[in-house]
Amino acid sequence: MTVLSSVLSVDGSRLNASISRLAKVGKLPNGDICRLAFTPEDLQARYLVQQWMVDAGMTVRTDAAGNLIGRYAGTVEGAPALATGSHIDTVPSGGCYDGVLGVLAGIEVVRTLRENELRLKHPLEVIVFTDEESSMIGSQATAGTVLLKEPQRYQPKVGRPIADCLEEIGGSWADIPSAQRTRKTLAAFVELHVEQGAILERTRTQIGVVQGVVGMLRKIITITGQANHAGTTPMNMRQDALVAAAQVILAVKRIAHTMPSQPVATVGYLTVEPNAVNIVPGRVELSVDMRELSQSCLDTMMAQLQQELETIAADTDTHIEIAPVLCVEPTLAAEAVQQTIQSVCEQLNLTYRYMPSRAGHDSLEIGRITDMGMIFVPSQAGLSHSGAEYTSPEQCTQGANVLLNTLIRLDAAYSC
Amino acid sequence: MTVLSSVLSVDGSRLNASISRLAKVGKLPNGDICRLAFTPEDLQARYLVQQWMVDAGMTVRTDAAGNLIGRYAGTVEGAPALATGSHIDTVPSGGCYDGVLGVLAGIEVVRTLRENELRLKHPLEVIVFTDEESSMIGSQATAGTVLLKEPQRYQPKVGRPIADCLEEIGGSWADIPSAQRTRKTLAAFVELHVEQGAILERTRTQIGVVQGVVGMLRKIITITGQANHAGTTPMNMRQDALVAAAQVILAVKRIAHTMPSQPVATVGYLTVEPNAVNIVPGRVELSVDMRELSQSCLDTMMAQLQQELETIAADTDTHIEIAPVLCVEPTLAAEAVQQTIQSVCEQLNLTYRYMPSRAGHDSLEIGRITDMGMIFVPSQAGLSHSGAEYTSPEQCTQGANVLLNTLIRLDAAYSC
Repeated sequence: MTVLSSVLSVDGSRLNASISRLAKVGKLPNGDICRLAFTPEDLQARYLVQQWMVDAGMTVRTDAAGNLIGRYAGTVEGAPALATGSHIDTVPSGGCYDGVLGVLAGIEVVRTLRENELRLKHPLEVIVFTDEESSMIGSQATAGTVLLKEPQRYQPKVGRPIADCLEEIGGSWADIPSAQRTRKTLAAFVELHVEQGAILERTRTQIGVVQGVVGMLRKIITITGQANHAGTTPMNMRQDALVAAAQVILAVKRIAHTMPSQPVATVGYLTVEPNAVNIVPGRVELSVDMRELSQSCLDTMMAQLQQELETIAADTDTHIEIAPVLCVEPTLAAEAVQQTIQSVCEQLNLTYRYMPSRAGHDSLEIGRITDMGMIFVPSQAGLSHSGAEYTSPEQCTQGANVLLNTLIRLDAAYSC
Repeated sequence: MTVLSSVLSVDGSRLNASISRLAKVGKLPNGDICRLAFTPEDLQARYLVQQWMVDAGMTVRTDAAGNLIGRYAGTVEGAPALATGSHIDTVPSGGCYDGVLGVLAGIEVVRTLRENELRLKHPLEVIVFTDEESSMIGSQATAGTVLLKEPQRYQPKVGRPIADCLEEIGGSWADIPSAQRTRKTLAAFVELHVEQGAILERTRTQIGVVQGVVGMLRKIITITGQANHAGTTPMNMRQDALVAAAQVILAVKRIAHTMPSQPVATVGYLTVEPNAVNIVPGRVELSVDMRELSQSCLDTMMAQLQQELETIAADTDTHIEIAPVLCVEPTLAAEAVQQTIQSVCEQLNLTYRYMPSRAGHDSLEIGRITDMGMIFVPSQAGLSHSGAEYTSPEQCTQGANVLLNTLIRLDAAYSC
């Protein structure tokens, strides 16, 4: 058996039937899907996917982080694997496609290879990463970025320590280091995912060639002024924390707008104290979330914000503190993988555009240890994390075909 | 007995002893005073004050609104009363002076007249108005502005309908109209009160000659945008309700600043939905509170705000609704009373400045039916509605002396 250089196609109706079948697991009466990691629904979905992997001719194992790994053997002994995959856990009110498409398209790729009696030179792995929607423990363990000092690290959505959760799905906190992979065992990783944004739809583009997964800086800003009588305190004697917060919100937006790379920056959370109609606000807490593909751009944005905060504090006679919450470095997609995806799109006559992923994905972690690429397909109206999430069967099939042919080309391009 | 044209003085130590005695009623362990209207503490304070009124030679009655009215007879039969007074109820964490000073200074004025064997031509009334801190039912009934269509009107702080509350203090909802006064029975009303702001202290002024009690426009503004993913929604596709709210907050401040009469305008209350760090805000509700002595200025400010809201809604692709909450018309102090207070200050060698009252007072209502004036004394650091509220004994005495001599001059000025 050898690899075809002509174009292969997946069985779109089989792929979409799998997506529909998995969507029954955890479906709520309102149509949303609730399949939190480590819950019975997650286990039920894992069982189903594992069976599909076996049926497709893969050997299956679960690593210490609970990652479910199906492996379709290659023809060259000892070659590092090519891998694809994503996740099958959802947010509390999720949809049918987020994560699932990447896993089931990976299995469909293997089914297609097998029924064409094809094997790649490299082993082909389809990986279901554990708990992408919350802890990202699966992809972090694979990348070796889990902090082992935190055995009691908590999974807030299921309300238990992650160490306990792992035991229930066949993993083991103590053995987490054994889940780590390197370039020596993983030559490249390609993830197919729904965009979860509206750019492809609005630009009528079929495929997104992902340039990388953005980094994230998240801070909590606390503004302390002086609560006071809204009648008897003249405007020029006020230390109004909410007026200061309003200036911060507009500064955050302005900073994002002035960057040529079109980053995003959001104040999504804000609380006021004492929050009464007749009292000048004394204290405001708000969040800032900045996302960008370039770490230096993120650093520049944050430095600009800090300068603005000093001006705002002086201008409003308030005290402003900024505390770090989260700092995730961006991961760039490998040039070679991006170019391969582009070539496949051209071959398949699919329109494409280069774009960053501004949502987090397992690829963010896997890209730290090996060549990574991502393929996006459109999300209707940009909706995600909702039962209304929708990508058409045709779009799902197009994504799977790009994934299939990209893996075939990478198999040829990467040495064993 | 005739009225002296020379200067009389109250007994400052007696006045301040009364203030200290009343401060024991409802005192909390932390030093704050909680003497909500209609509670046992309110009744206990009423009993004490009633006794002091009787001891000072007044006849006492309670009207249908529960107003406690002490009356020191005048020399001219059938003359309308001159009145002073304020309230003795407090906010849940109140201080010793707010309201109390006006009532006890009124009683001290009568004590002083009596021990000097003086009577005015007009009867002199000292009125304790019911529930100034919440419903203002006492002064509203006196002014005839209670809406009788609302028998189930609620007193939120004590958690019962006002009609029920009134029964407990000797009033009667059904008889509320009988509490109404007019210029025929009330020639003028003068209220001594602590400033509850910091203007007198900061300008080192002893007495505030109040020009009137500001009117108030209070609105709730609801901004509807579109909640969305804070990563995958590009800045130019957002309908961010909090960015719109930030512009509203700054517009409210700017509008107040541009008015030459120095009104105040406050956004004190604001809530965000869904209020999560990683979601673009979809909905914000906020309050606007504007206070000014001139109704036309208030109307201008609100018209300007409404224009700005249209611009902001268009600019941020959001929908903005504005709903009325409260509309209280301003009440101007009578010129004659203001000038009399000024003359007395000059006679007593007290520094004074004209100023609006930007807090609400019983005078706001009483000024709708007869000539009204207010005398302010300084509040330390502008603090009020707090156990830390403080006005020195000397300042209290100065205020009471201005009240005494103002009433004596008004007695001469007003015909019987």
